[in-house]
Amino acid sequence: MSGLERKNSNKVFDGILYKYTIKSSSALGGLPASFNVFVPITASTSKPAPVLIYLSGLTCTEDNATQKAPTLFEAASKEGIAIVLPDTSPRGAKIEGEDESYDFGSGAGFYLKATKEPWSKHYNMEEYVLKELPQALKVAGLPLDVSRRSITGHSMGGHGALSLYLRNPGVFRSSSAFSPICNPTQCNWGKKAFEGYLQGGVKEGEAYDSMLLLAQVPIDKRKDVNILIDSGLADNFAKEGQLRVEEFAKVAMSNGFDADRISIRLQDGYDHSYYFIATFAAEHVHWHAKFLKG
Amino acid sequence: MSGLERKNSNKVFDGILYKYTIKSSSALGGLPASFNVFVPITASTSKPAPVLIYLSGLTCTEDNATQKAPTLFEAASKEGIAIVLPDTSPRGAKIEGEDESYDFGSGAGFYLKATKEPWSKHYNMEEYVLKELPQALKVAGLPLDVSRRSITGHSMGGHGALSLYLRNPGVFRSSSAFSPICNPTQCNWGKKAFEGYLQGGVKEGEAYDSMLLLAQVPIDKRKDVNILIDSGLADNFAKEGQLRVEEFAKVAMSNGFDADRISIRLQDGYDHSYYFIATFAAEHVHWHAKFLKG
Repeated sequence: MSGLERKNSNKVFDGILYKYTIKSSSALGGLPASFNVFVPITASTSKPAPVLIYLSGLTCTEDNATQKAPTLFEAASKEGIAIVLPDTSPRGAKIEGEDESYDFGSGAGFYLKATKEPWSKHYNMEEYVLKELPQALKVAGLPLDVSRRSITGHSMGGHGALSLYLRNPGVFRSSSAFSPICNPTQCNWGKKAFEGYLQGGVKEGEAYDSMLLLAQVPIDKRKDVNILIDSGLADNFAKEGQLRVEEFAKVAMSNGFDADRISIRLQDGYDHSYYFIATFAAEHVHWHAKFLKG
Repeated sequence: MSGLERKNSNKVFDGILYKYTIKSSSALGGLPASFNVFVPITASTSKPAPVLIYLSGLTCTEDNATQKAPTLFEAASKEGIAIVLPDTSPRGAKIEGEDESYDFGSGAGFYLKATKEPWSKHYNMEEYVLKELPQALKVAGLPLDVSRRSITGHSMGGHGALSLYLRNPGVFRSSSAFSPICNPTQCNWGKKAFEGYLQGGVKEGEAYDSMLLLAQVPIDKRKDVNILIDSGLADNFAKEGQLRVEEFAKVAMSNGFDADRISIRLQDGYDHSYYFIATFAAEHVHWHAKFLKG
């Protein structure tokens, strides 16, 4: 990466919310990339805050959850945790068709490493979130301890949070998700993304499928898996089969996972919207705090 | 009014958020008007919830605070209070110049009764909020007790909340505001609005000036005035002289007001944004609850 610029800041819940832009992201093939970060007032150089990364869903930018789920910051302020919210895809790659659908291209990076031309040059949100974002936080000079990291997200971002966690043992202390795409090789959103971004199509996409990844966790490692999922029972995308949280739950309920560390909750009456996220955001932050501060 | 239609609903913080549209509003000269209402789960026909009206600021619709300050609903859910959020002006009056400025016409109704042509036919947000909105809530058949009403708002909506409260003793039990335009006859936003909407211009506007209205409360009635104001010390509009909260505070500090019932807080570091509202929304709801449930 090169060129990190602080664009603006707002005080919220005693902490400060910053927006930064990386002028040239190496993971994203030289494109600029913006992210938001909430720093609690309790963070200081001598007492840096651990970091919870929040990944957004289809069509969103770094601003949607920032603006519509301020309960994230309320809880993070109480816990002394930072929240980092990246964008959902590269922007302005100038690839034909990039802006044609809501579920592919811009706003739909799927948190993977594209291997298929012409997407492979820019669409590497996995590396961006895993490596470049923590690097940018260090360059920013904020009082954060990126060695203590957890990850959460919504819908496509829930897929990102679960799959990055399960693909990279030891990087994140815990993972949670709101209405996540749990089993993307078996739903339309996931199939379209994998066929479009990956040379090997849906088959290659199995390596990003959280349900399959969960099933592959070695038995002796299962007790260390920390996952919280909330999904709404009035969620139309769930009804269409895009999320498949129940399939994920079936694997999660198999022997060897620690019941205190893995929790999947189907919430009566809630839909796929930010109202759902705002309602349960604080519980997720408090849950991650156990691992980030433990 | 005629024709009330429920457009959609979302569950949030255990309650239900509804959007309604009045097809033809009489206060607004026959135009349609939309509003949102949060109904707590504890409300029922035998135990109807009291109502807190939230008035938004310049450029906003009924959706901005609804989406960006869900902490309103979190606190309202805990207190068993409904929140009603109307739009900020008539829409589609087809008056020349209606959509030309951000601070006059559409999105800038100023919660008054326009007396100047051509605005007087449609721009009567005062009557809409005072009479038609409570009537619509009754027609909607929601379990609400509109006889127990309080009012809050932001910026221009803070002006609305304070001025409607002070102009109509006995209608609202309490009034609060975030970053309100307190003394509109002395600021650019207010002068432009009064000159544009009122035949008598700024002079006629004195009847809507909260600072002047507060000064006119009879001494023996001052102990009954319930007002809470939060304003940010990093608010650029305050620095430009648009709000004049300090002028309002000078009047409020005069003898005869009850120190337990009138509170004006200048909050360090906060600006004019929804991050500020989201941070303090719960405190306002809990404060109104004392009067709504007392």
